[in-house]
Amino acid sequence: MDNFKDKVAERYKAIQNEICKALEKADGSGAFEEELWSREGGGGGCTRIMQNGEVIEKGGVNFSAVHGVLPESVKKAFGVDQAEFFATGVSIVIHPKNPMVPIIHMNIRYFELDDQTRWFGGGIDLTPHYVIEKQATYFHQQVKATCDLFHPNFYSKFKKQADDYFFIKHRDETRGVGGIFYDRLKPENTELSWDEILEFSVAVGKIFAPTYTELINLNKTKAFTEAQKAWQLQRRSRYVEFNLVYDSGTKFGLETNGRIESILMSLPPQANWVYNYEPLKDSEEYKTLQLLRKGIDWV
Amino acid sequence: MDNFKDKVAERYKAIQNEICKALEKADGSGAFEEELWSREGGGGGCTRIMQNGEVIEKGGVNFSAVHGVLPESVKKAFGVDQAEFFATGVSIVIHPKNPMVPIIHMNIRYFELDDQTRWFGGGIDLTPHYVIEKQATYFHQQVKATCDLFHPNFYSKFKKQADDYFFIKHRDETRGVGGIFYDRLKPENTELSWDEILEFSVAVGKIFAPTYTELINLNKTKAFTEAQKAWQLQRRSRYVEFNLVYDSGTKFGLETNGRIESILMSLPPQANWVYNYEPLKDSEEYKTLQLLRKGIDWV
Repeated sequence: MDNFKDKVAERYKAIQNEICKALEKADGSGAFEEELWSREGGGGGCTRIMQNGEVIEKGGVNFSAVHGVLPESVKKAFGVDQAEFFATGVSIVIHPKNPMVPIIHMNIRYFELDDQTRWFGGGIDLTPHYVIEKQATYFHQQVKATCDLFHPNFYSKFKKQADDYFFIKHRDETRGVGGIFYDRLKPENTELSWDEILEFSVAVGKIFAPTYTELINLNKTKAFTEAQKAWQLQRRSRYVEFNLVYDSGTKFGLETNGRIESILMSLPPQANWVYNYEPLKDSEEYKTLQLLRKGIDWV
Repeated sequence: MDNFKDKVAERYKAIQNEICKALEKADGSGAFEEELWSREGGGGGCTRIMQNGEVIEKGGVNFSAVHGVLPESVKKAFGVDQAEFFATGVSIVIHPKNPMVPIIHMNIRYFELDDQTRWFGGGIDLTPHYVIEKQATYFHQQVKATCDLFHPNFYSKFKKQADDYFFIKHRDETRGVGGIFYDRLKPENTELSWDEILEFSVAVGKIFAPTYTELINLNKTKAFTEAQKAWQLQRRSRYVEFNLVYDSGTKFGLETNGRIESILMSLPPQANWVYNYEPLKDSEEYKTLQLLRKGIDWV
């Protein structure tokens, strides 16, 4: 068992390295700064942040492997009695400078209480400031191709779960064009072994670098106006709202006294709230809002 | 009873008018834009927003009087069974342009389920980007003077409650220099009649205009550097974190399908998240962080 925990953590750490290398290459000038930290209750992590790159305004690629005693509130939320936990994962959020380049998020994680109570979770989703339908389709195709290697139902099931999860209820809009979201994956509900689920999770991690590099290259040299930059800052405020109001990873981090700066690295370098802003009908901004809906079949 | 609801709502509406007039005068050039809205479940409100004034970058003064059916989640949180509710209140948050002028928040509200289950709540608190001790003392003295007119224990009790309520747990810092916060005030726990509690609540509303006008006048012409502006944007991100993660008024609004733009008018026009920023020791920024602590006796 401890062997398995170590194995997952090692594979995840390797994913972090691979992705950071690819992102530095895609950015061209920015470099990650690394911070190693330990958690008072047990374990620690390695947070890597790039700020003010050529393409990436602020991005974080966080690895952690923590353990300790679960707070009451989390026990209740998980419906478990066991107090000792182990959790390892890689978490990424990238906020690009150019509003034509989308925000992206990826997370893979493994959580364990004991032999009986353990699972994998994760997801990857895309948040374009301006939805370009062809690129949303490309993104979903990449994700589907990986899912299909492991289970014929994974993509359709996890795509729907992403629509439901990455949803800003109080705005009645999705965070972006979605992707996949899965949780509590284990042999009982996947027809896969623990090792195969680990391989799926690593494969989700491996979607990130080539797919986002492609999206960066397609958009990074596009010109943009001040009004388009203002729209980006406005869309980022919705990202903040989602992460602080709904995101369960953020909540878990705040409630387990995680390292605040690593948990909140997902927040954008700058976000604006303009009162009651409504884009003109048929503008690009308006069209984007129309596409922030659940249930769109991008593939 | 219905008479009392109407009376509270009328007095609160008058407070909104008075404060808006005073804020326009203190600003000098900005004007409030008004939006009347109705709530699908019952009732409505009047939201007034000033953007890009001379002093006020973004400020909202919101009045509402809503009623309807309480969602399950709120019933649970309040520990009540009754489904019909009435709520009226005035809510203010002002984000000034100049980092030397503090952010301020004020809220007075009345909530009623039935004759047995009703109460007043509210508070006023100050969030300077740079804490100036004399001004924090001035603010607390004004608040205390009003409290003392109604009950000898109100200030000390509600000041402590503000320290506990306006607290950003995950940052281990208070939102600002505090003020007062009170909830569930009724004759049983105040030795006051319903009418006297209403008068107290109106008096809290009346602290706002003269006190904030004084703080504006003391600070609005002070020069500031780019670095001080950057610090303000950074402090505003903490304000966002408090409001979206902890503020129960915001949560109540989001869960009862309140008017989103009125609820989130409290969010700043711009907020920045810089990774892991720590001010230099003994800088003004550092000194401010040292004063964001519970239990400081400002009076």
